[in-house]
Amino acid sequence: MSFTPRLQQLLSALRCLPGVGPKSAQRIAFHLLDKDRDGAATLVNSLQGAIDGIGLCERCRMFAEAPLCPMCADPKRDATTICVVETPADVVAIDDSGGYRGLYFVLMGRLSPLDGIGPDELGTALLEGQLEQGDVHELILATSATVEGEATAAYLGSIAARKGVKATRIAHGVPMGGELEYVDSSTLSLAIAGRTVVSDG
Amino acid sequence: MSFTPRLQQLLSALRCLPGVGPKSAQRIAFHLLDKDRDGAATLVNSLQGAIDGIGLCERCRMFAEAPLCPMCADPKRDATTICVVETPADVVAIDDSGGYRGLYFVLMGRLSPLDGIGPDELGTALLEGQLEQGDVHELILATSATVEGEATAAYLGSIAARKGVKATRIAHGVPMGGELEYVDSSTLSLAIAGRTVVSDG
Repeated sequence: MSFTPRLQQLLSALRCLPGVGPKSAQRIAFHLLDKDRDGAATLVNSLQGAIDGIGLCERCRMFAEAPLCPMCADPKRDATTICVVETPADVVAIDDSGGYRGLYFVLMGRLSPLDGIGPDELGTALLEGQLEQGDVHELILATSATVEGEATAAYLGSIAARKGVKATRIAHGVPMGGELEYVDSSTLSLAIAGRTVVSDG
Repeated sequence: MSFTPRLQQLLSALRCLPGVGPKSAQRIAFHLLDKDRDGAATLVNSLQGAIDGIGLCERCRMFAEAPLCPMCADPKRDATTICVVETPADVVAIDDSGGYRGLYFVLMGRLSPLDGIGPDELGTALLEGQLEQGDVHELILATSATVEGEATAAYLGSIAARKGVKATRIAHGVPMGGELEYVDSSTLSLAIAGRTVVSDG
């Protein structure tokens, strides 16, 4: 059947949500129109507010509502360490793990020449400028463990070397709770290559 | 980590979407803010347009942008038959099946006393008024094959009987392509009880 114009527009617009196809769009639209018009109105306002008010932090490119994000503006955080990640979601994941209290730098992607994503798109010049100032003692490369993530880490490592800043890569290996039997072979070979000394014998 | 106020508001507002929990809300918000601000702006406009412009059809309670929905306003449809369904999605499913060209009546729910949903919430008085006018020759009860859907069908059947209108219930049985081995027992017993004559012998 053909939908009325506004409904058709809503169904098309909902497709911008990640993972939402025609069926899900219909389910969402009918749910909002039938059962939760207040929720839909709140969503309109919040989404508009976010579009207008949320930009990127001038220093780390994390989402921010002021020139600096709350983390970069926090004097209690260790400004001598910068952890480079690919996405804002990675910042949330690392910060929630509780093991890190330094600053971040969000690439908003990873080197991918085929998709037209080079150093300029990742804001590496901004990062380079921060390394030049001399306050940063360590650059932690926490890009993903994919071919493109590794290439990005290697590229950033070479920048750090040029600026005389120590660069480290997060450890790769068997995840906690991971049964060896079910861990894939490339992770296992990384885990063995990266083994650490427990007793010097 | 704590999010900035507008981001936190957006994350809460996204929870009004069906099936969206905290993790999905974050994924949607970050995707829109990072990769698709134009899509988000379009969604804001479409959603606002839908809230303002989409109501219920005066005759069948389907979503409509005018007093009557396109189906009720279509003189080519058979106005002597009304198919009663629980949701707008059911109207779409039946109409797309191509086997029906009459009108619909959308209950927007089903009888469920425990949830406070009685005949008034389902608009049965409106349906009763239409049966009273005498133009309707058949009421097809296409509520769901659940305890509450059956109760709703029985209730509407009694209204139709009182108004002297023929009421029918959609067939229940083995779905097309369904292997008997995997069909549940209550469906199978309905399929046997509702068997039809193929040859009179």
